[in-house]
Amino acid sequence: MKTSLPYVILIAAAICMVNELPLDAQTTDSGAALSANNLMPVPAHLEARTGSLNLDTSFSVCTNLPKDARLQDGVRRFLTTMGTATDLTIELHTDCSASHATLQIDVRSAGQVVQSEDEDESYSVDVETDGMHLNAASTVGALRGMETLLQLIQPLSGRWVIPAVHIDDEPRFRWRGFMLDVSRHFQSVGEIKRTLDGMAAVKMNVFHWHLTDDQGFRVESKRYPRLTSMGSNGEFYTQEQIREIVAYARARGIRVLPEFDMPGHSNSWFVGYPKLATRKGVYSVAPGIKIANAAMDPTLESTYGFIDSFISEMTTLFPDRYIHIGGDETDGTDWRANPRVAAFMKSHNMKDAKDLQAYFNVRIQKILAHHNRRMMGWDEILHSDLPKTVMVQTWRGPQYIAESVAAGHTAIFSAKNAYYLDHMVTAEEMYLNDPIPADAKLTDEQNKLVLGGEVCMWGEQVNERTVDSRTWPRTAAVAERLWSPQNVRNVGDMYRRLNQESIRLEALGLTHITMEEAGLRELASSQDDSSLKVFASVTQPVDLYRRNRLEHPTNLMPFNSLVDSINPDPPQRYRFVQTVKSFLATKSNSYEMILQREFSEWSTASANLHEQAKTIPALAAESQRFDELSTLGSIGEQAIGFINSGKPAPADWVKSSEGKVAQIGARKSLIDFVVLDALNSMVVATSQEAR
Amino acid sequence: MKTSLPYVILIAAAICMVNELPLDAQTTDSGAALSANNLMPVPAHLEARTGSLNLDTSFSVCTNLPKDARLQDGVRRFLTTMGTATDLTIELHTDCSASHATLQIDVRSAGQVVQSEDEDESYSVDVETDGMHLNAASTVGALRGMETLLQLIQPLSGRWVIPAVHIDDEPRFRWRGFMLDVSRHFQSVGEIKRTLDGMAAVKMNVFHWHLTDDQGFRVESKRYPRLTSMGSNGEFYTQEQIREIVAYARARGIRVLPEFDMPGHSNSWFVGYPKLATRKGVYSVAPGIKIANAAMDPTLESTYGFIDSFISEMTTLFPDRYIHIGGDETDGTDWRANPRVAAFMKSHNMKDAKDLQAYFNVRIQKILAHHNRRMMGWDEILHSDLPKTVMVQTWRGPQYIAESVAAGHTAIFSAKNAYYLDHMVTAEEMYLNDPIPADAKLTDEQNKLVLGGEVCMWGEQVNERTVDSRTWPRTAAVAERLWSPQNVRNVGDMYRRLNQESIRLEALGLTHITMEEAGLRELASSQDDSSLKVFASVTQPVDLYRRNRLEHPTNLMPFNSLVDSINPDPPQRYRFVQTVKSFLATKSNSYEMILQREFSEWSTASANLHEQAKTIPALAAESQRFDELSTLGSIGEQAIGFINSGKPAPADWVKSSEGKVAQIGARKSLIDFVVLDALNSMVVATSQEAR
Repeated sequence: MKTSLPYVILIAAAICMVNELPLDAQTTDSGAALSANNLMPVPAHLEARTGSLNLDTSFSVCTNLPKDARLQDGVRRFLTTMGTATDLTIELHTDCSASHATLQIDVRSAGQVVQSEDEDESYSVDVETDGMHLNAASTVGALRGMETLLQLIQPLSGRWVIPAVHIDDEPRFRWRGFMLDVSRHFQSVGEIKRTLDGMAAVKMNVFHWHLTDDQGFRVESKRYPRLTSMGSNGEFYTQEQIREIVAYARARGIRVLPEFDMPGHSNSWFVGYPKLATRKGVYSVAPGIKIANAAMDPTLESTYGFIDSFISEMTTLFPDRYIHIGGDETDGTDWRANPRVAAFMKSHNMKDAKDLQAYFNVRIQKILAHHNRRMMGWDEILHSDLPKTVMVQTWRGPQYIAESVAAGHTAIFSAKNAYYLDHMVTAEEMYLNDPIPADAKLTDEQNKLVLGGEVCMWGEQVNERTVDSRTWPRTAAVAERLWSPQNVRNVGDMYRRLNQESIRLEALGLTHITMEEAGLRELASSQDDSSLKVFASVTQPVDLYRRNRLEHPTNLMPFNSLVDSINPDPPQRYRFVQTVKSFLATKSNSYEMILQREFSEWSTASANLHEQAKTIPALAAESQRFDELSTLGSIGEQAIGFINSGKPAPADWVKSSEGKVAQIGARKSLIDFVVLDALNSMVVATSQEAR
Repeated sequence: MKTSLPYVILIAAAICMVNELPLDAQTTDSGAALSANNLMPVPAHLEARTGSLNLDTSFSVCTNLPKDARLQDGVRRFLTTMGTATDLTIELHTDCSASHATLQIDVRSAGQVVQSEDEDESYSVDVETDGMHLNAASTVGALRGMETLLQLIQPLSGRWVIPAVHIDDEPRFRWRGFMLDVSRHFQSVGEIKRTLDGMAAVKMNVFHWHLTDDQGFRVESKRYPRLTSMGSNGEFYTQEQIREIVAYARARGIRVLPEFDMPGHSNSWFVGYPKLATRKGVYSVAPGIKIANAAMDPTLESTYGFIDSFISEMTTLFPDRYIHIGGDETDGTDWRANPRVAAFMKSHNMKDAKDLQAYFNVRIQKILAHHNRRMMGWDEILHSDLPKTVMVQTWRGPQYIAESVAAGHTAIFSAKNAYYLDHMVTAEEMYLNDPIPADAKLTDEQNKLVLGGEVCMWGEQVNERTVDSRTWPRTAAVAERLWSPQNVRNVGDMYRRLNQESIRLEALGLTHITMEEAGLRELASSQDDSSLKVFASVTQPVDLYRRNRLEHPTNLMPFNSLVDSINPDPPQRYRFVQTVKSFLATKSNSYEMILQREFSEWSTASANLHEQAKTIPALAAESQRFDELSTLGSIGEQAIGFINSGKPAPADWVKSSEGKVAQIGARKSLIDFVVLDALNSMVVATSQEAR
């Protein structure tokens, strides 16, 4: 292990400086050494007090519901996590007969038998120097409060403490979800458990499980065994595993929302049960990840009989009030091509495929209602025939929220350019996207119909090694958006807390940092990987659409390219952007030093990577990007020179440099630079020095 | 991500220089760019040829045993691993009708139905520029050969190739094992599977599963359900999981050797079945990790009835020819304290506990033989009454190998100061420890009785997060000792290959590098962890005995201290030692620069850590070690100055510096420096400059 310490210190100092730039008002302000504002999500109300509570091995917990197994299990996990974080051997002391427990938990109710969006998750916390009280409306609220306490743990003068504080907290939105597609790439039970651990840490409450799609049927049905025996490649969850996950989620105050996509995205159903399909023929699960555009036949009663029986079985596995029926991207090709279906549409006065899908949806809704389940689907299900009880998940764009609630539906927000993780937008962009923006023109009634949002992790281009780095820590930023008050929008403070939370999430078992590091190490073969790390610190993967066009990935692809070990939002990006801003605003020598060092590092890394790319095939594909890193470094160095000279840069240099940056930004590649705008602002600044 | 590139390059160059120092003869010598000598373990015979075979997506495999499921499964894994390593989308092409497969595998036999130490693992490989042949005596040999091919994959001019080569290979020892204790700390099925993947990669063939000990009974018995319901804390393997692991191991050519420790180390049996115990009373599984010193009652027929019935059930789970009965560390206290047992000993003319244990062992051996199993035990079972068919695992010291084979027993080598991973000896020391040293005074017959060796990972001080970093990559060095010819002993070349293999092992799913990195990151809380990394690069944990004395660890300890994220043999250690040697031998400026930089880095890291330890409790405990790092750096810097001056250093400086180094080495702490000897050699050298 080799790093240059003085430089690291310089950077650390710079980050501190950046954080001290004028920012929006902090949520709270505590004493010098202690910080009560490390919380993510930020609580609704927080009041820092004086002093702190010492943590030691005598820690004890008393609850008013000793027989609530979920609460007791939560207390045990709380103590284990606290023990790991502090390296203190903390045994389970829950003896309430002792005069004074370190933590007293009082819960008004064990919570709903089947958790729903109506569960009361509110809680309050009082930390005094001699003990803590956690009061919660329900066991779920107590679980949320314990996560808050864990985030408050911090070192002080060589001890572990929780700062004295009063918190009153409840979520802004009742639906704070994470969707995982396990059809395109299967994810193990272990992966899902650690995902649930991460969700619980940031107070999310819905695990939306996209269990079926064209590429594979992932849930065992005993009534229809060919769904998995023929419709998966052997990778699916047994009913026992489903129950295990549902219980694991419930223990953490998380609902499990199953999705069975229909009538489209349903190729995997047809492999074993071709009679469900509109187009007759032989179906197979292929490694391709394109949409199959096959659709169920909505004109046959046998289709509804099958679904009724299937849903009936699934309700024994999934207790949640909702079932998600997908309903997205059914283009109607197979329907129009089938004369019988076409005749059906004509005889029922349906003008297009949307009408037929609405007919299908209404039928399905009745089946679900019969099984005591509410229906939910992607925003293509919106139709005047749709019962108002159906909930809409909006994904195609922010306008669909307004459309859904205007039509009287409840709705959640998952706009693809905001909350789809494979679009590779930054945590900042995700964070600032609000299901109900401050300038939204909704009535109070309509506002109430917006229940929250979901982050979506589609599975086409991830596998078990890379899914965490696509999911975390960005998902934590959205978790805060959905929990915290609307006016909590300070991006700098969000990144400060996100970087801390990111490390905590790894301690819980997630692998988003370590797997990236391991990936770069492996890519470098036995060569030094430090230049690759520099490159990774200023780049991001392109979004899935662009990668699809460039690579046509299939399920068989190993996804072990350089792009797979690069983060959608490398922590260095925000630091660099802020440093450039600060430099341009202050011309301070300390910011200049940091930037000089950064640009010089780019040039050195570029030269090394140029050589490494000659031998290592995994790097050869990106050799042009490596060379561009040096170009960018030179532009930055020259820009500093011009700015320091106090005279405007020659117009042709400005034009040429802007052109180079634009060209690098426009060139097609699997990897994009994330520093171009900031660098361009430096170039622009050189021409403005004359003013 | 921030590192100082020029320095990294300097270090890389230095490592190359170190590797070019005169070393023992290389095993093989291939062309300039290609290297056939990256293999670990080194094969018995290797002949490098000219040219290489290109790897691309058209890769195809043909075998002569298309119905051998184990072989076909191995081929699939081979292609997946190759695909991941090269990021090539390689589909399964096993059509032998094509004129020419890229890899032709011919196997003489599918191998033993139950693999034993008599399995023929030999194979040969011919790589030509247009195709490869793998010939093996058995499917297991073919699996070994495929691992060799995977290690040969390397980049060449932006392509992936396997260099042309001829290899004839077979193991030196038939028994190349790894023992895992899952009683003191339970390890999940996932952890065991990745351990088996790692073992297979370095051609190990016995997974010795230490399933029972005082702290927990970890295998489900349906006949005696209280063994786990009362004798474990709920952490055990179901019979289904056991079968899954046994099948997973067999698929990789690995035997599973179960150990049921008796008559001592057996406290967990007695919790549910106290009648087995010599001392009557109530037993419990406690979090303490001390030896319970409770023992089965060898005088009661009911004891043997129980064991007979238990073993009968276990043989349905474990098909291996051997069962390990432990037999270690039975001190006889309970026996002597029980009048009936004492009377039994007297009436049977037994002079001590060893005689009684021999009686017990002979009875157990008969039970095992009745169930068609051979007996195996730790070296305390050696006794004149013991049948020669019993195999001995020697652990107390190298002399027990000689004693065992002199008595006519087969034996394997696991001497604790050589192959016990928790003794924290370096890979170098483990590597040079040979079950049959070149100077061993054994007859040819006796040599044949030494079947091999086993690395042992005891579970007192590890958990799932740390076990990999204690196991790997050091275990790979022993895997080579047990497979490769006796004269393969070049330590520098071993470390070169070990560092590569270490990265490959992580790509297979092991976590020995990443978990250390994550641990240091978490310990630094939200502060910079680069100083901790410098500290970790020159230190190692103390061995388990010393930690036991300092900490009295229990099962409840989180094992999340700094010492838990530090490697037993940090890669930097060997580099530093070699650089010091080279500098002293050559006085070359380039080595001096590296050392100067290193010492300066120690001082800077020391200063940072001094500050960090003031706030972070996890670091406070080691603050003295942090300060000592600066002392060592100063001594190094001063030594360089004296050596460069060409004059001897003042005698009082030499004495004082030697004293400081000695004092730092002698101070009790959980963490030791690994650079003291090398640094001291520099101090000594300053006094010799006068000569």
